Amino acid sequence: MINETHDPNLRSWVESANDPNTDFPIQNLPFCMFFRNNVERPRESIGAVIGDSLIDVEQIIKLGLLDEFFPEADRVSYEPYFHFASLNYLAGMLCANRIKLRDGLIYLLREGADNETIAAVRPNLTSLADVTFKLPAFIRDYTDFYCSIYHATNVGSMFRPDNPLMPNYKYVPIGYHGRASSIVVSGTDIKRPYGQNRSDAEKPPVFIPAKNLDYEMELGFFVGRGNELGTPIPIGEVEEHIFGVCLVNDWSARDIQAWEYQPLGPFLAKNFATTISPYVVTMEALAPFRTPAFERDADDPQPLDYLNDPQNQKFGGLDINLEVYIQTEKMRNEKIEPHRLSRSNTKDLYWTIGQMLTHHASNGCNLQTGDLMATGTVSGKEKDERGCLLERTWRGTEPLELPSGEQRRFLEDGDEIIMKGFCEREGFRRIGLGECRGRILPAE
Amino acid sequence: MINETHDPNLRSWVESANDPNTDFPIQNLPFCMFFRNNVERPRESIGAVIGDSLIDVEQIIKLGLLDEFFPEADRVSYEPYFHFASLNYLAGMLCANRIKLRDGLIYLLREGADNETIAAVRPNLTSLADVTFKLPAFIRDYTDFYCSIYHATNVGSMFRPDNPLMPNYKYVPIGYHGRASSIVVSGTDIKRPYGQNRSDAEKPPVFIPAKNLDYEMELGFFVGRGNELGTPIPIGEVEEHIFGVCLVNDWSARDIQAWEYQPLGPFLAKNFATTISPYVVTMEALAPFRTPAFERDADDPQPLDYLNDPQNQKFGGLDINLEVYIQTEKMRNEKIEPHRLSRSNTKDLYWTIGQMLTHHASNGCNLQTGDLMATGTVSGKEKDERGCLLERTWRGTEPLELPSGEQRRFLEDGDEIIMKGFCEREGFRRIGLGECRGRILPAE
Repeated sequence: MINETHDPNLRSWVESANDPNTDFPIQNLPFCMFFRNNVERPRESIGAVIGDSLIDVEQIIKLGLLDEFFPEADRVSYEPYFHFASLNYLAGMLCANRIKLRDGLIYLLREGADNETIAAVRPNLTSLADVTFKLPAFIRDYTDFYCSIYHATNVGSMFRPDNPLMPNYKYVPIGYHGRASSIVVSGTDIKRPYGQNRSDAEKPPVFIPAKNLDYEMELGFFVGRGNELGTPIPIGEVEEHIFGVCLVNDWSARDIQAWEYQPLGPFLAKNFATTISPYVVTMEALAPFRTPAFERDADDPQPLDYLNDPQNQKFGGLDINLEVYIQTEKMRNEKIEPHRLSRSNTKDLYWTIGQMLTHHASNGCNLQTGDLMATGTVSGKEKDERGCLLERTWRGTEPLELPSGEQRRFLEDGDEIIMKGFCEREGFRRIGLGECRGRILPAE
Repeated sequence: MINETHDPNLRSWVESANDPNTDFPIQNLPFCMFFRNNVERPRESIGAVIGDSLIDVEQIIKLGLLDEFFPEADRVSYEPYFHFASLNYLAGMLCANRIKLRDGLIYLLREGADNETIAAVRPNLTSLADVTFKLPAFIRDYTDFYCSIYHATNVGSMFRPDNPLMPNYKYVPIGYHGRASSIVVSGTDIKRPYGQNRSDAEKPPVFIPAKNLDYEMELGFFVGRGNELGTPIPIGEVEEHIFGVCLVNDWSARDIQAWEYQPLGPFLAKNFATTISPYVVTMEALAPFRTPAFERDADDPQPLDYLNDPQNQKFGGLDINLEVYIQTEKMRNEKIEPHRLSRSNTKDLYWTIGQMLTHHASNGCNLQTGDLMATGTVSGKEKDERGCLLERTWRGTEPLELPSGEQRRFLEDGDEIIMKGFCEREGFRRIGLGECRGRILPAE
């Protein structure tokens, strides 16, 4: 499904989109929800990001500028509630129609567009610096998976050295339900949560601010069209149901987690906040960066039939680089740039996002347009590919040295975590996922 | 907070409400969402149930019949989205204002109301037989707890005989996030889910229809006004945040659960469906049935301070009887009445619903109006007080004999589970929670 919209020679009359380092060339065009700052009555609207600006998609549609590519008859969304009030409107469309919208936007924004088109479109561009982002979708249900075998093995070996990887791991894309209400958009401050801590097994637990606060670097993906309760989504049809991806920081309080998680899994250790980036990079934009599914060891079992599909094995993976940076308060004060803590890649995930989605619906569970799923911490084989501090500092036993001379076992108040994601491939433009930021405020 | 609205001598001019066996005397008045059958354009509306009928609350308000008791200024809801489109509207009110609405409805429906009032109200009554119930609330997030110590001990002793009750149990009201999208209203058929089954540890798992399908008898409660992210709800203020209760059947596929649940808890074993009763019995109606919190053993720890409150210790419990009945296809064909499988009581829960709610928000997690929480399976000490088949048949090893001559280890296709709840106390009218029904359809 790589086509002319992925041509690296395609340029835009929005000059910043042609910068080779931008996350947002014309080949990307991620969607977002935004409102303009400094206007009298800010109104939430659908945007598509291009270079250092965004285009008001809703306005462009209303002005009729897309009628040729994206006719009114194709603007039907299967998402019942939120027409134009969130990206659920786009997510609920047939993929084929969303592609028409993308093609139309590229047509309007491409270098070589006629002057009349440019004159009509330009007033609907706004600098990214002049907008506030909202959560891109109305997320009814949020599910977090655990699909990095390196992460699962590392964490397992800390808590269960005799039995690091559960016997179900290579058969089941393990997941659990997260909290939808506490998902916040990049830039929202995160208050250190209180919780029960029982670090001293000889004494009763105490209710104190979390000591071992951590991030988890994950990839999120949004459900496109959903399925009816009782009707699974076959693995062969799964791509029709995925809208696009974002960055996810699954903040985690490890001391709360260790005490509460048995037997029903993490709860208060996670649900105080989850941060996501504001941009949904569509599966269309990601087409050049699809990879084969994870190559299993010869003695690993093959996926069961309902999770096995030749297309998914060939193209179900994703080659997305994920980076985590930290900037402490001291670093900010001393103007020290954010320091990279890890770099990992989603192609190292044991299960594809398609397998996660099919598994989720395999019992008939009804997925809904705008639902968010996340992969779980994306870690690789190497130490500097570990996507959370729990792994990176091996439960705090190997503190990290920062360029400010500080050490970190876990997060301190004032620390900011900055996650980035991007795709690179010879012969294609670089595609970015933007940033996902959050700063720790002290407990109150 | 027991007042004149709980006077057992209070009668209604709706004669069926005076039947001593009704679930819905004038002292109850649970709320629901319904539409009328056999009308041209059915419209969802808020109802309050009285005897064998319901009153269209929305219409009564619009007609101005409640203006005296429930003035317009008090109709403010803190629930932003769904004015009049779900019970979230009522749930999001200040308790004090909801009480005015209740008092007004009782005034209109009481025996002794003047003829003019009765003539104005009567056209807004509909027989329960002529309506279809919808889910009462828009449930954004659903959380399931695990608060029966008898259930936790029984289940624990099956799976971890050496360590039946986790060391955290007496400190932490254990809970996990459930799936909101697959919550259905009583009467919805439940399709047997497919899932991975590894009953033979020597062989790979197989993907087949669940064999060990089970119900769980739980009490649900709805969040009234919510809290902002980062702002806990103190235990002393918790009653202001609870709207009312319903019956919950947390359908569970035990074979899927046993294989998938480690390390992150139940997922596909539960999220194929959860059934709730259509009525929300308000905390106001339940006032006479509040009890002291569970009496802990002398060597049990006291709740940590953030979960400890003298009022909650005295009145935080609930005396609600919960019954589970089964009617198999054979029983239906042979006109054999449903057979009772268990009877338990919420006063046996180790944690109060107030403690569950305070714990949930203790890390700053934002609860939202209409969120559903459930207690977990409500079991008592005795065998016939065990609220699920896993316990009742001890993992299938002690099959139950039914009056049809059939045996049950777990649920078979065609089985219908009927849950009932009711409160009884000397000197008060019986208050019922109605029924929560669901029938198992074969896997497809």
